Amino acid sequence: MDIARIEAAAKRLKSHARRTPLLGAPALDQIAGRRLLVKPECLQHTGSFKFRGGWSALSAMSPEARKKGVIAYSSGNHAQGVAMAARAHGAPAVIIMPSDAPALKIDGTRALGAEVVLYERGREAREEIGDRLARGRGLTLIKPYDDPEVIAGQGTCGLEIAEQAAELNVTQGDVLVCCGGGGLTAGIALALQARAPDMRVRPAEPEGFDDTARSLRAGKQLANDQEAGGLCDAILTPKPGDLTFPINARLCGPGLVVSDDEVLHAMALAFRHLKVVAEPGGAVALAAALFHGDALQGDTVIATISGGNVEASVFARALQRL
Amino acid sequence: MDIARIEAAAKRLKSHARRTPLLGAPALDQIAGRRLLVKPECLQHTGSFKFRGGWSALSAMSPEARKKGVIAYSSGNHAQGVAMAARAHGAPAVIIMPSDAPALKIDGTRALGAEVVLYERGREAREEIGDRLARGRGLTLIKPYDDPEVIAGQGTCGLEIAEQAAELNVTQGDVLVCCGGGGLTAGIALALQARAPDMRVRPAEPEGFDDTARSLRAGKQLANDQEAGGLCDAILTPKPGDLTFPINARLCGPGLVVSDDEVLHAMALAFRHLKVVAEPGGAVALAAALFHGDALQGDTVIATISGGNVEASVFARALQRL
Repeated sequence: MDIARIEAAAKRLKSHARRTPLLGAPALDQIAGRRLLVKPECLQHTGSFKFRGGWSALSAMSPEARKKGVIAYSSGNHAQGVAMAARAHGAPAVIIMPSDAPALKIDGTRALGAEVVLYERGREAREEIGDRLARGRGLTLIKPYDDPEVIAGQGTCGLEIAEQAAELNVTQGDVLVCCGGGGLTAGIALALQARAPDMRVRPAEPEGFDDTARSLRAGKQLANDQEAGGLCDAILTPKPGDLTFPINARLCGPGLVVSDDEVLHAMALAFRHLKVVAEPGGAVALAAALFHGDALQGDTVIATISGGNVEASVFARALQRL
Repeated sequence: MDIARIEAAAKRLKSHARRTPLLGAPALDQIAGRRLLVKPECLQHTGSFKFRGGWSALSAMSPEARKKGVIAYSSGNHAQGVAMAARAHGAPAVIIMPSDAPALKIDGTRALGAEVVLYERGREAREEIGDRLARGRGLTLIKPYDDPEVIAGQGTCGLEIAEQAAELNVTQGDVLVCCGGGGLTAGIALALQARAPDMRVRPAEPEGFDDTARSLRAGKQLANDQEAGGLCDAILTPKPGDLTFPINARLCGPGLVVSDDEVLHAMALAFRHLKVVAEPGGAVALAAALFHGDALQGDTVIATISGGNVEASVFARALQRL
């Protein structure tokens, strides 16, 4: 994995993925105690950064393989990203989703033309289901993070951060990234290593699902005790990826861990001051920027909002924080 | 008023105002019955397009006049736009606001360093208060819409629409604009006349405050029966502007009128599918695009979301539509 692969993905994504803006608000700077810039990937197609990786993977396939189709397993955001990219490329898509995924994400995936196969989280191994279907139909598996083209696609978000921050004369500081399997984190870290070497990526995770923070401290991949049940459904992965972890261990600073209450508060503040909709898993980095300033370095902090696919009832709960 | 003035404003706004993206979602296309592109000015500084006009006016003043300061009357969005632009220019700002303006907007204006003077809507004439203060302190009045530099600033939004739509190969169709006094409408109409002459601006208003739609039909400025009390506080103006109405009468197609229920529904759909926060007055054009398709022409419709400064309780009400 190197910057050339990310630049190649950026070329393929051009005029297909959205160049999301870099937002900020004086009121948030005040809470954060420093300048806070926010990269709202909730405004990306399908409501999360996952469209970048999906498009990158689909566009890198051979026409023959694309024609047979793709398969992906995902709690929702990767599903929708792959489904929309597949439809645009004329490729059939099968998506394996946990039966407890938000109805919004299951419906959204079906609406994008994908065939959805549900499995029971904890009782069945999605990898086995995926392998069986993939072999039977000749489908290409697009993994949610342990795939070089997927990481390269997510890395295009890092290229944009470097460019947009430089336009504001920001070239150093911590860049907080919402972290599940570590694909967005690894992609942004690789992009910034090449384009903004004085910036440091810091993965952000919710309490109870801080496998990356603990793994970075231990210097080896550690798993979470639980696999489901948290507020931040988008970023609940069993452990850091085999491809992503070595990259993140090499390039990232210490991880940050936030509470569910901080996540809901961050969602409410993004509503009030940025006018964007963050889902819980998409708000962990913003929560860390706002409420864990003591653990950060520099005059400016950059935080991703990785997605905005949230049920109205959960969002209404967050609004009660105001 | 001509395109040169808008282009001059665009130069002064460059790297100060945000270039908001042009969004869309397959699910919204389906509801609208055509391709729907959305210009989310809720993502602009201070949460509404008004920052453009405020910056345009402040940056066009002489240094001497700026030093004395500016005054504006506004229910909230123009207030915040002028306050933030004034602070960035080092100019004192006095803002005259109705006492029934949303607390969020009053607080937001004060947080931007402006001196807020409250008046009672219906009982006092804000123009008189403004005149008295302006003369006493040598302040320059920045009107919310009947000011050429303000209209030119709002017109920069139209330049962006023309460019961004052309990138998507869209050069014709109706462009729906949330309309209060008509400044954004006039600015965009002037910009599109020059840059996308096959597009047609259509003002959108809430029921009971459809002064522009009725005035366009009558060919003369007609007032609203009521001046306050509606859901769409941002765009409740007594009648079309003296400067804006002749422009809009010359350039715009028939106005569109939407119900409060349609507005709340549009806010909910913007939350779900675009991940942006629209305030009621900022969602009227989107509501017209989604629910009044029969009155539109063309394969594509473009709708502005003019602002996102909405109280959490009102937003929670909108979310119940889902």
